[in-house]
Amino acid sequence: MSNSGRVLLAYSGGLDTSTILSWLIDEGYDVIAYMADVGQEEDFEAVRAKALKCGAKDFILDDMRREFVEELIYPAVQANAIYEDVYLLGTSLARPVIARGMIETAEKTGCEYVSHGCTGKGNDQVRFELAFYGLKPDIKVIAPWRIAKFYERFAGRSALLEYAESKGIPVTQTKAKPWSTDENLFHISYEAGILEDPNTTPPDDMWKLTQSPENAPSEPERITIEFKEGIPAKVSVPASGKTHTDSVDIFLTLNALARKHGIGRVDIVENRFIGVKSRGCYESPGATILRTAHIDLEGLTLDREVRRVRDQLITTKLSEILYYGFFFSPESKFVRGCIPASQSTVNGEVKLKLYRGNVVVEGRSSEEMLYDAQFSSMDEMGGFEPENASGFIAVQAIRLRRYGLGQAKKGKAGADIKTAYQL
Amino acid sequence: MSNSGRVLLAYSGGLDTSTILSWLIDEGYDVIAYMADVGQEEDFEAVRAKALKCGAKDFILDDMRREFVEELIYPAVQANAIYEDVYLLGTSLARPVIARGMIETAEKTGCEYVSHGCTGKGNDQVRFELAFYGLKPDIKVIAPWRIAKFYERFAGRSALLEYAESKGIPVTQTKAKPWSTDENLFHISYEAGILEDPNTTPPDDMWKLTQSPENAPSEPERITIEFKEGIPAKVSVPASGKTHTDSVDIFLTLNALARKHGIGRVDIVENRFIGVKSRGCYESPGATILRTAHIDLEGLTLDREVRRVRDQLITTKLSEILYYGFFFSPESKFVRGCIPASQSTVNGEVKLKLYRGNVVVEGRSSEEMLYDAQFSSMDEMGGFEPENASGFIAVQAIRLRRYGLGQAKKGKAGADIKTAYQL
Amino acid sequence: MSNSGRVLLAYSGGLDTSTILSWLIDEGYDVIAYMADVGQEEDFEAVRAKALKCGAKDFILDDMRREFVEELIYPAVQANAIYEDVYLLGTSLARPVIARGMIETAEKTGCEYVSHGCTGKGNDQVRFELAFYGLKPDIKVIAPWRIAKFYERFAGRSALLEYAESKGIPVTQTKAKPWSTDENLFHISYEAGILEDPNTTPPDDMWKLTQSPENAPSEPERITIEFKEGIPAKVSVPASGKTHTDSVDIFLTLNALARKHGIGRVDIVENRFIGVKSRGCYESPGATILRTAHIDLEGLTLDREVRRVRDQLITTKLSEILYYGFFFSPESKFVRGCIPASQSTVNGEVKLKLYRGNVVVEGRSSEEMLYDAQFSSMDEMGGFEPENASGFIAVQAIRLRRYGLGQAKKGKAGADIKTAYQL
Amino acid sequence: MSNSGRVLLAYSGGLDTSTILSWLIDEGYDVIAYMADVGQEEDFEAVRAKALKCGAKDFILDDMRREFVEELIYPAVQANAIYEDVYLLGTSLARPVIARGMIETAEKTGCEYVSHGCTGKGNDQVRFELAFYGLKPDIKVIAPWRIAKFYERFAGRSALLEYAESKGIPVTQTKAKPWSTDENLFHISYEAGILEDPNTTPPDDMWKLTQSPENAPSEPERITIEFKEGIPAKVSVPASGKTHTDSVDIFLTLNALARKHGIGRVDIVENRFIGVKSRGCYESPGATILRTAHIDLEGLTLDREVRRVRDQLITTKLSEILYYGFFFSPESKFVRGCIPASQSTVNGEVKLKLYRGNVVVEGRSSEEMLYDAQFSSMDEMGGFEPENASGFIAVQAIRLRRYGLGQAKKGKAGADIKTAYQL
Repeated sequence: MSNSGRVLLAYSGGLDTSTILSWLIDEGYDVIAYMADVGQEEDFEAVRAKALKCGAKDFILDDMRREFVEELIYPAVQANAIYEDVYLLGTSLARPVIARGMIETAEKTGCEYVSHGCTGKGNDQVRFELAFYGLKPDIKVIAPWRIAKFYERFAGRSALLEYAESKGIPVTQTKAKPWSTDENLFHISYEAGILEDPNTTPPDDMWKLTQSPENAPSEPERITIEFKEGIPAKVSVPASGKTHTDSVDIFLTLNALARKHGIGRVDIVENRFIGVKSRGCYESPGATILRTAHIDLEGLTLDREVRRVRDQLITTKLSEILYYGFFFSPESKFVRGCIPASQSTVNGEVKLKLYRGNVVVEGRSSEEMLYDAQFSSMDEMGGFEPENASGFIAVQAIRLRRYGLGQAKKGKAGADIKTAYQL
Repeated sequence: MSNSGRVLLAYSGGLDTSTILSWLIDEGYDVIAYMADVGQEEDFEAVRAKALKCGAKDFILDDMRREFVEELIYPAVQANAIYEDVYLLGTSLARPVIARGMIETAEKTGCEYVSHGCTGKGNDQVRFELAFYGLKPDIKVIAPWRIAKFYERFAGRSALLEYAESKGIPVTQTKAKPWSTDENLFHISYEAGILEDPNTTPPDDMWKLTQSPENAPSEPERITIEFKEGIPAKVSVPASGKTHTDSVDIFLTLNALARKHGIGRVDIVENRFIGVKSRGCYESPGATILRTAHIDLEGLTLDREVRRVRDQLITTKLSEILYYGFFFSPESKFVRGCIPASQSTVNGEVKLKLYRGNVVVEGRSSEEMLYDAQFSSMDEMGGFEPENASGFIAVQAIRLRRYGLGQAKKGKAGADIKTAYQL
Repeated sequence: MSNSGRVLLAYSGGLDTSTILSWLIDEGYDVIAYMADVGQEEDFEAVRAKALKCGAKDFILDDMRREFVEELIYPAVQANAIYEDVYLLGTSLARPVIARGMIETAEKTGCEYVSHGCTGKGNDQVRFELAFYGLKPDIKVIAPWRIAKFYERFAGRSALLEYAESKGIPVTQTKAKPWSTDENLFHISYEAGILEDPNTTPPDDMWKLTQSPENAPSEPERITIEFKEGIPAKVSVPASGKTHTDSVDIFLTLNALARKHGIGRVDIVENRFIGVKSRGCYESPGATILRTAHIDLEGLTLDREVRRVRDQLITTKLSEILYYGFFFSPESKFVRGCIPASQSTVNGEVKLKLYRGNVVVEGRSSEEMLYDAQFSSMDEMGGFEPENASGFIAVQAIRLRRYGLGQAKKGKAGADIKTAYQL
Repeated sequence: MSNSGRVLLAYSGGLDTSTILSWLIDEGYDVIAYMADVGQEEDFEAVRAKALKCGAKDFILDDMRREFVEELIYPAVQANAIYEDVYLLGTSLARPVIARGMIETAEKTGCEYVSHGCTGKGNDQVRFELAFYGLKPDIKVIAPWRIAKFYERFAGRSALLEYAESKGIPVTQTKAKPWSTDENLFHISYEAGILEDPNTTPPDDMWKLTQSPENAPSEPERITIEFKEGIPAKVSVPASGKTHTDSVDIFLTLNALARKHGIGRVDIVENRFIGVKSRGCYESPGATILRTAHIDLEGLTLDREVRRVRDQLITTKLSEILYYGFFFSPESKFVRGCIPASQSTVNGEVKLKLYRGNVVVEGRSSEEMLYDAQFSSMDEMGGFEPENASGFIAVQAIRLRRYGLGQAKKGKAGADIKTAYQL
């Protein structure tokens, strides 16, 4: 067959992307297999061997761990990013790093196409492709799971297995787990398969990155995290006698601690970008500790109104940008650009106790001066004139009293205290 | 001394309000002592006796538990109300109920004054007084801790004790605890005293409403909560074989379960309305379970965009209204009035595991049809045409590609993929 | 050809939808032509005749003017709905009414298909179809301008004209205007054609619904509008000696007045839902008067905080819902459901002067009591104790002074007043 | 009398501040009179003479016009700042500049006190004092109109006049106008006096900074404004043959043009920070032109989502910060710091017609590439595949169809199209 062009394929080593690799070759493409090391547990050499065995012209492994931590994870920590109150965005955070690695590699290797194995109902196809287009508007994308010729041929696992056999693609997992996963150093996700019934409790042996709280140590462990401008700068672990200051080391250390103490599991039904609800289970061990500590330190060090504006603007919008896949967009650049100024005072230390799923704040301190125990003290005057509070209240009440008078005149308040403000 | 008028005093039975009671009489007022039963653990008869002994003309005890649960707590549950990501607003929620009880009672008993023992630096003075003025714009308020004549005389605990002795006021607590508390059926708060150093870990014996996770049972317990329009309608407790459907019973049952399993403690530095930061510790046992369950069920049953608008509008604003004390205000009536419509689909059951501080969702179900496993399934087509996702992505990308082209022309993107969207 | 099914076509009488009508018949469909009377200037009988001449099985004309005004326009007035600061949403407001009429008619007439003549780049295709699907999830939509077989055949006006001639479709407009329009009783829009250059000034003779300010009367005219709960209830026009109280009559009266006085033209570049920018010119005569009057009356009658919440929630979100076409959605039902409670106090009269493009507020009055001249008066005490303001300011300053002290300690403020808060 | 200290007084030359000046001296203070030149029309030498005649130790005049325009006005233009949909914040914008000038001068001249003549019900007392405290937390403020000794003595204009006579203070205005004004180069405000009746139309001769539309030229005038990163960089005035590029010159030129053409008057009832409603009339001539032009150019050059975030965050919050007086606050620094990134693409030209109160946009152009006429064109394919819109709509409809199915099952939709989404 004549050459259809050159494709860089996001390759996982699994059955799906191996099939895609082989099928693309069938379709006349030259294929380079691409894998980003974003901290997932993986035998990269085995993946390389498999890619080449499937016919890839090359296999490229990119170590993205540091930029994943520093450019994606830490800004999300600064912004307390979270989706729908629960999901810490572990998959979403890795996508921009992988997509950028792919576009860079595509340019270097002369690939005019990029391809991926995401399905047509999920978020990841959107995240990858919007990132591709944002970075390189003229890139061409091949998404086989949205091409009838492909998805009709490979409807069902048996068709994939049969094809693999015919192509000599080694199928490592003789029996697939009854769910899908996505793993990186931030988290692992579980979805699909038996999890699609939202009332099914995930089996204990599904969870991979954390101990269950029940099996966690019976003794609590105490650590201290220091933040500089909202970014974790030092983790002290008395039990090991070590302190950690390198960004990646900090994150991996927290992961190990959280794993040991059963911290970071969630199980939710969330709203995908394409408008369907989806059940997902996640383990985000270190990130869960960091979130608790960061929010706590902001209590001590962040001005109330800065926090409020940040919560409304950055937290909400950044989380949506990440989840929906708009990282490489003008609004992302704008919103992310607002983060550092919100964090200039978020400096200090948080003391934490880790125990069977719990992250307990036991104290915090800071050189920033927004908290003043003496001034806040209920027991001391500390330069405060209580009469000022009377004036404050009186002025705050002006509007309410005026409204109350108006209501009373209408017979809506005053006449009946009980029902005046009922709905 | 000539009669200065008639005062309804919010009376706690403690040293402060007993002193205020007596002092108001010294100042020529007739005083009626008022106590709201909002579920705090209290020997009401002892308080009554003490009030009368201090010279109160009468002691009035109002059982407010049901309206506290139904009019305040459950709407807050529906709205996922929370202050600064952590505080569930237990004190804030009780204030409107107490204040309304006082204004009703003041009207019935002919009191033209109301009085309270809140200090001049706290939130509660504001919450009480804004509620008073909203309900009865012409009410007169006596806040002794903001009156120099009072606070200068009673500067320090010894002055209070001395006065109490001189008046024959019984001082039950020979030695005060080194913190202040506020308790109701929703929560207990601890602040001031030794807690004013935000780096001091609260002593184990401070916590009153919950077992510590370390001392909680080693066996998890499973329960089911059913919600109707976002309000808990039934709690099933297999261990006891009981189901609970009465609003107050449900809440007290969840309190007992959470207490047993060490659920609901937090320790934060928060921003008071008057602009100082303050350290507070809270136990909100049952409320913590309810919050987890309610948010989870919304995942299954609430439309994504309704949730988003609700989060931005109602959750944030209602929480601020409650914390700042604007419950009896036009904006409160407006915002609370929007809650029910947001909850019409929040019907269903959540299965929970309670274990040593953890509230673990193990499944959820609903007759609402917003979740459709088949349609969401990654493994089935289920009426979904994957090509539609291609169009969806292509249209979403139009804006990003246009921006990318513009950036490239300016030499800001394209030329250097790595830095194109960096800050 | 065998019968492909029954289609209800949104028919305008123009070349495009006449061609579509005929082409659908070619494709084997039975076609019923549908037109909604939303107040556009149109010879409905001529349209009917043309539809039938083109082969329609029937022509159905629905008078939607009253529900357009009462169900769409007036809630938008209450909410001050506006898109991107300028566009009053005239086309967006009519779409839900038309779409609902079509779905009702499709059900009555047994059409399993609906069709429209919207192009593939615009907002209206989205608005129509999302409305169709929201109202009748299983409806089937035929959008010829997105079907290659159609749009490739009819690429360019000459192909349309040729086909029309071949089918005996009368082409009324021998020469098309160099722009497209959409008209209803709320507004007319102009876009495309020569307007696609955003730097081209629209020719004077384009504007249809309003006099130019230059040609408007040299004498101002004064009118009064009375609102009840935010809805216009009475318009008094001294010049004619008439008062108008019927909802449609009020709107048409304001249209006539605004037309005469050159009020309501705008010319903008806006952001379409599909992510392209688009230049549009609009005339929204009566709506411009109503908006000015309603906002003004809210100043007098709406509580500050209710207004703020309403502005953030309802105004912004409703405007987006309308523009993007999500009127028949859960979030629309929720958001619209919040409007009435925000308007309960918006009762009163506004006096206006209309003059050459200007809508000048000359006064307003209300029985609501939120404004109190005496209390607001700078010249009178009116029950206000100025010392309260001192306390108010002192408390507001606590946070700022604390921050200032912290900055000073860091050498960021105090040392240099000029630069302390510069960026 | 012994020396009470040294006061820097914000001095206007009027009866109030002259009385305060003299009274402060009576009270034992040394007083330095301070006036900021923020562009108001004023005989500064006469003011100086009067201050010294009243007994001021010195009179200091600060020319603040450039920093007023560059540090306050232009960021507000970039952010489209506006209060309650109507008020362009002219007084609010000048206060930070004046307050900073005062604190700088107080430091230079060794004044430990600052004083002003603002009344106790207004916004300006708050704006001044919060600025003072933010810039210099230990500053002491004397606000005579909130000191009973002062305001009781000077209750009413006759007491002021009598005192002035006794002190030999010249009273220039023999008859006060029946309203108060505040003027600077951005605007003039009118309030109080006869304006306190919100139904009173302001008399024609009140307006000072603009011609009435009726008396404006009968010929329109055309100008062009060029913006760079959202800041006006050049104004071209064909009628004069001049172009203006200096920041202050640009603003004054636009003021002159707007004045001539009757542009920039508003009359509103607004909500003051202290919770009362207040009627104010304003002329903001040049600012009105700039606002129209800036918003228009954003249509052409600003990304839709950046605009949306900016509108929600910066526009709303900055406007409140300015109006309430929190310019020197952490949240102000944060929010203002986000403005520049939002404006990087706001480059280009806007063509305007000025005519009798109307600012009509006649075209706009830009080198930014967010608008692409060919791509937006309804008449051309321009690389757009209409089928993509089908996919886009189909995916957007998933959520609505699911909801519609759920409603239908409940008998809420489908059964009755007409009422399905009614409230």
